[in-house]
Amino acid sequence: MTDALAPLEIGTAEMIEDLDAWWRAANYLSAGQIYLLDNPLLTEPLAPHHIKPRLIGHWGSVPGITLTYAHLNRVIVRRRQPMLFVCGPGHGAAGLNAAAWLEGTYGEHHPEAARDADGMRELFRQFSFPGGVPSHTSPHLPGSIHEGGELGYSLAHATGAALDNPDLVVACMIGDGEAETGALATSWHAPAFLNPVADGVVLPILHLNGYKIANPTLLARMPREDLTALLTGHGWEPLYVTGDDPRQVHERYIAVLNEVFERIDEIRDDARLGIGPRNPRLPMIVLATPKGWTGPAVVDGVAVEGTFRAHQVPLAGVRDNPEHLAMLERWLRSYRPEELFDEKGAPTRQIRDLPPRADLRMSANPLAHGRTRTDLRLPDAAEHAVPVPEPGATVGEATRVLGGYLRDAAVANPRDLLFFSPDEHASNRLDAVLEVTGRRWCDTVRPGDDRLAPDGRVFEVLSEHLCQGWLEGYLLTGRHGVFSTYEAFAHVVDSMVVQHAKWLHMAAEFPWREPLSSLNYLITSHVWRQDHNGASHQDPGFIDHVLSKRPEVCRVYLPPDANTLLHVFDHCLRSRDRVNVVVAGKQPALQYLTDEQARLHCAQGLGVWSWASSDQGGDTDVVLACAGDVPTQETLAAVAVLREMAPDLAVRVVNIVDLARLFPADRHPHGISDRRYVEIFTALRPIVFAFHGYPWLIHQLTYRRPGHERLHVRGFHDNGTTTTPFQMCAMNGIDRYHLALAALEQVARVGDRIGHLRDRLLELLDRAEAYACRYGEDPPEISDWRWQGVPPGR
Amino acid sequence: MTDALAPLEIGTAEMIEDLDAWWRAANYLSAGQIYLLDNPLLTEPLAPHHIKPRLIGHWGSVPGITLTYAHLNRVIVRRRQPMLFVCGPGHGAAGLNAAAWLEGTYGEHHPEAARDADGMRELFRQFSFPGGVPSHTSPHLPGSIHEGGELGYSLAHATGAALDNPDLVVACMIGDGEAETGALATSWHAPAFLNPVADGVVLPILHLNGYKIANPTLLARMPREDLTALLTGHGWEPLYVTGDDPRQVHERYIAVLNEVFERIDEIRDDARLGIGPRNPRLPMIVLATPKGWTGPAVVDGVAVEGTFRAHQVPLAGVRDNPEHLAMLERWLRSYRPEELFDEKGAPTRQIRDLPPRADLRMSANPLAHGRTRTDLRLPDAAEHAVPVPEPGATVGEATRVLGGYLRDAAVANPRDLLFFSPDEHASNRLDAVLEVTGRRWCDTVRPGDDRLAPDGRVFEVLSEHLCQGWLEGYLLTGRHGVFSTYEAFAHVVDSMVVQHAKWLHMAAEFPWREPLSSLNYLITSHVWRQDHNGASHQDPGFIDHVLSKRPEVCRVYLPPDANTLLHVFDHCLRSRDRVNVVVAGKQPALQYLTDEQARLHCAQGLGVWSWASSDQGGDTDVVLACAGDVPTQETLAAVAVLREMAPDLAVRVVNIVDLARLFPADRHPHGISDRRYVEIFTALRPIVFAFHGYPWLIHQLTYRRPGHERLHVRGFHDNGTTTTPFQMCAMNGIDRYHLALAALEQVARVGDRIGHLRDRLLELLDRAEAYACRYGEDPPEISDWRWQGVPPGR
Repeated sequence: MTDALAPLEIGTAEMIEDLDAWWRAANYLSAGQIYLLDNPLLTEPLAPHHIKPRLIGHWGSVPGITLTYAHLNRVIVRRRQPMLFVCGPGHGAAGLNAAAWLEGTYGEHHPEAARDADGMRELFRQFSFPGGVPSHTSPHLPGSIHEGGELGYSLAHATGAALDNPDLVVACMIGDGEAETGALATSWHAPAFLNPVADGVVLPILHLNGYKIANPTLLARMPREDLTALLTGHGWEPLYVTGDDPRQVHERYIAVLNEVFERIDEIRDDARLGIGPRNPRLPMIVLATPKGWTGPAVVDGVAVEGTFRAHQVPLAGVRDNPEHLAMLERWLRSYRPEELFDEKGAPTRQIRDLPPRADLRMSANPLAHGRTRTDLRLPDAAEHAVPVPEPGATVGEATRVLGGYLRDAAVANPRDLLFFSPDEHASNRLDAVLEVTGRRWCDTVRPGDDRLAPDGRVFEVLSEHLCQGWLEGYLLTGRHGVFSTYEAFAHVVDSMVVQHAKWLHMAAEFPWREPLSSLNYLITSHVWRQDHNGASHQDPGFIDHVLSKRPEVCRVYLPPDANTLLHVFDHCLRSRDRVNVVVAGKQPALQYLTDEQARLHCAQGLGVWSWASSDQGGDTDVVLACAGDVPTQETLAAVAVLREMAPDLAVRVVNIVDLARLFPADRHPHGISDRRYVEIFTALRPIVFAFHGYPWLIHQLTYRRPGHERLHVRGFHDNGTTTTPFQMCAMNGIDRYHLALAALEQVARVGDRIGHLRDRLLELLDRAEAYACRYGEDPPEISDWRWQGVPPGR
Repeated sequence: MTDALAPLEIGTAEMIEDLDAWWRAANYLSAGQIYLLDNPLLTEPLAPHHIKPRLIGHWGSVPGITLTYAHLNRVIVRRRQPMLFVCGPGHGAAGLNAAAWLEGTYGEHHPEAARDADGMRELFRQFSFPGGVPSHTSPHLPGSIHEGGELGYSLAHATGAALDNPDLVVACMIGDGEAETGALATSWHAPAFLNPVADGVVLPILHLNGYKIANPTLLARMPREDLTALLTGHGWEPLYVTGDDPRQVHERYIAVLNEVFERIDEIRDDARLGIGPRNPRLPMIVLATPKGWTGPAVVDGVAVEGTFRAHQVPLAGVRDNPEHLAMLERWLRSYRPEELFDEKGAPTRQIRDLPPRADLRMSANPLAHGRTRTDLRLPDAAEHAVPVPEPGATVGEATRVLGGYLRDAAVANPRDLLFFSPDEHASNRLDAVLEVTGRRWCDTVRPGDDRLAPDGRVFEVLSEHLCQGWLEGYLLTGRHGVFSTYEAFAHVVDSMVVQHAKWLHMAAEFPWREPLSSLNYLITSHVWRQDHNGASHQDPGFIDHVLSKRPEVCRVYLPPDANTLLHVFDHCLRSRDRVNVVVAGKQPALQYLTDEQARLHCAQGLGVWSWASSDQGGDTDVVLACAGDVPTQETLAAVAVLREMAPDLAVRVVNIVDLARLFPADRHPHGISDRRYVEIFTALRPIVFAFHGYPWLIHQLTYRRPGHERLHVRGFHDNGTTTTPFQMCAMNGIDRYHLALAALEQVARVGDRIGHLRDRLLELLDRAEAYACRYGEDPPEISDWRWQGVPPGR
């Protein structure tokens, strides 16, 4: 803790008066949002009918938020320093609504709530009200990039927002409740990744509000020296602002912010001159003020201010309890609204003059509204395509091919494209990117380290939360990125992707928010090739999770080979306001489509692979459908088996890249019509569908399709362990032999031959299994299998 | 860092020789598992055919794990101190397999791998081999309670295991990679919750291995004083064991462990005498040794030992590259196997004598195998039932009623039942439990705090990861618990529940593992009553996620009222080896079933509510099915609307409590037969199903049911915001008016009247919405609505 700060400048007393007036105005407006339906300026005595029937909101964190906002505004004005405000205690949205209203932006974007008495009444009414705005920070709030409902992601968002914005300061309020979450706890590691020259400054303001809903917070209750140690250990230098006397706190906050920005200047100057330490300790603020500060101290004989009881609505019975009503009126009048607003309800000049102007207002920062975003310059996918002389005859590593494309994208977009991975970037075969940039690392480097660099564009940290949170912050401020991760562990960020998808969906309502680049996942090291890592690494459910969310936002792609992966990813990187999940293997696998074929197949999203089908010019006996690289390989191998064993069987092969195509057209914008569905899948024939994920996902998409009862889906049934790739398929019945058998069983007219063929297929299966158990790998007839082309005729 | 330790005792040199021999034996066996198919004792020169064709495993963390295991064994023997070993770097399973093999337990439980040459060959062969054991710690490993695949949960598991086990020490290896995860980062807060009198000791051993797969680790690379600060800040006192010279490291490790256990004694003694600080700083160890220590130092001219390249298989080309083969042989022989194993392959006496005997072996700790578990003593649900004189006529708060039951359960089971919640226990209306116990809090207490106590049985921390991880550790060591949490934020632990469900499923294969108490979730503050908190708090997808996992393990219950919630929870607390998700509202809601009716309804899992139906003794026109408390209320209200508007319509009401009942009988053990399905849902009539969650989940369960095309499910479509309870329903079409309309539309013979009725229903809907937008709450005819009973006749 640093107590020796520079003395305050002349004029501080007036400054404090202005700050305090603005703070009182914001607090007044916040309490008003929670309570008032009418009488916004208290021009008449408060009466029950002025009070909302249902009191909703969170007062507890508001005074700390508004105080901080006021003091940051002083700094912005003085230094003309662009700032973004990320508010971790997003439950204190009333405070930020108030700030934006005072700065004029709230009314600019919600004209019904302009800066006058009527507007103030509307600001109050619409807060947490049907047809109004949520009680948490959300896209409705100008200047905000942060959904305040689910706690834990503020510091990761702030860090992502600061990357590649060298002139920006991202002020990040962190709630001491939020600080207990896992995501926030590991977010403190940011200094090891922030480059003081190329990145902006992240300024955490840890708000020791003292309490959560019902409990004290860990960080507020631990001895201060322990808290200092915890933060120092992570690379920060905390400066404390502590107290419950407004005047003293104002003074201290001014002095601390002066000190903070002097240190920031020093660090930046040193870094630019190359004379500072590689990883300087970064200043941050700890603000320790009472929960619900300036609200009712004691209600019904019980302490409220400074306790957990101030969390939500400090006075609950205002409509029915005259004493509570009188306390509310005293509380509201304690801010002296008559000094803060003129008779028309507009903020007085003193209040209006405190914040900066135009884009320097934190609630108008163009970064927060995606206004600075530009499209990526992307390489031509064709130039990275692998040659495919014959389908299924050559082998390639899909993600390695994508790596080359992403390398060129990284070169072409050196300032606004980043890659994030939980220590798996190279393991996921995207190494080519590391030919042109390093792994971000601002700590010391030692011999033997592999391509660590303080300006690296590849961010690796063993935390899916940080990868996701940093990328979200980067996207939300108008940039681009890719998150590559192991399929099974994508579930670690299930809750985060929900919140981001909700944000994108809600933000689309507000025309002043520009579209953002999509959140693009490369999901690899997938279930079928985690044979070596075992059951814990085998879970394809992330796509189920994502596809259950808003169809306007969510997309899932399963490219079967390298060239389709290139075209899918090219599309995703160009798309906006989406969550795109691309599942692709990293292991050597068969290649099927040329660049041109892949482009077409991806554009259609699904289609008949006539080169693999034997039903041309005649009836189809059975459709073999597939989605995913391994299911596609096994389906083609099943077709080959069937050609040998039942050469007169007319088989149609269908491959699906864009899973949402299977949705009915009225359920998802990518859904195809029933007519098109029947064209592809036939009207009457049985379909054996080999699917990458849980089989019921396909049923979930198709249950309303004509003839759904003839669809037989095979997929992952949570049968897995450490074994071989083929055995993974066999355990779940999506291997070539099971698929061939399923196809035969569906075709009645070959029924009489099934007995013999079944025995033969099961024998082949047994042989493969016995080989694996003996040698620990699949037999060559499986692992070296290639598509042999179409035999002449039928 | 403490460097001044007590001098080592006489006999240390011999002790180190023994420890080093055991360590070499374990390392030899670990490398053998990764490489060898045959020639386990190197009785002949190593040849390519002795090598596994496919090399899988993680060598990097093994030497640190085996070293620690050896040194802990010394302490166990000397102090007769029961210990449990939780291994965060679970990818180092080879090291723990080796330790268990040396202690004899591996062979006791896997008789094919006994302690002789044949058994050693089998130990080697089956590691990461088809039909063998995984490459991570998993249920196959005696003494383990921790799945080592997904990283981040070791310290939370260790903390949970230590609770209520006052004589136990839980040693917890934490990988420095794992330490970057969010879950682990917040797990360091454990000291604030550990009671030195009633709980066991958690002894974290942070392994600074230096590298992850491709990158340095944050904790290893930061200055040591920063690491010390970080750990000290969280309440730990780290003691360092650093080096790469085995002898010196052995000496230091002995001295540090002596010191650690002296401090543990002091802390416990002081706490028992009541003279220590309330929250003493707990000793822990930081072990900084090279990654892949004792393995190949340099391979093909590149440094491997001590770098990220030692992560998996240090020598990759052993079968084809004679130089690598020779290096492997030198490496293996460097452990001098001939000194460690006799000619039959059994460990020599020196090796056998190091570990403790019988249950004191960490690999035989009865706690780890659930052997100490006893059933709960549970109160009679009937005694807590609310009186229900008439269905739907009275109001109760389901979770508050459950709270009374849980309070009595807490009293009856004071040593092995705990409650976990992310600061929501009282918010979730389980306050009654706090009448008999406190909230666990071992830090300081201040006036105004609410029932904090160092021996409290309610654990609250704002981290779903910690709640889940602590509970898992508690359950995995044979105890019982309840995790209550907000529905939307249950997704935070999506990945953890997957891993736990996998553990339960796999553990069932091993008869030496006793069944465990189920993981019981009370999911409340659910989507339909998060109207006040807005979109971020509205997500019912956790049940989709859980139901997609193993049917043997996973269950989802949607009790419609308080008495059904009581019976469902009673069942869950008695069940074993399950993941039970119970979704129940906390808001005042209608009560339908008496205790006896509820008992029966829960036993059947679903059924016709004849008291609400009008199809008795005649044909059914339409089935109104419902699952979940709010959908049930809206369904009954729709029935009432229909009775008024279309009195001759014969309606059947079906309520589903146990969602898995809808599965086909061959998909889930709770699934009902098609015959029973038709009995309940009729053979031909349309079904309008009001569902708590996403509608497609019901289709996923029922797509194979007879007449599935007549099933029309309404549920949550991600339409939500801050609004009123009724509006939440209306936005998603599951309100009474939409349901009534849907029922009418499905019944052809009233088709001619629909035009008029539709207008009337939409008018009612509009009126409700207009009221809400004006007053911010639902109109009384909605919020005060009660079921009026069955009108006489039809």
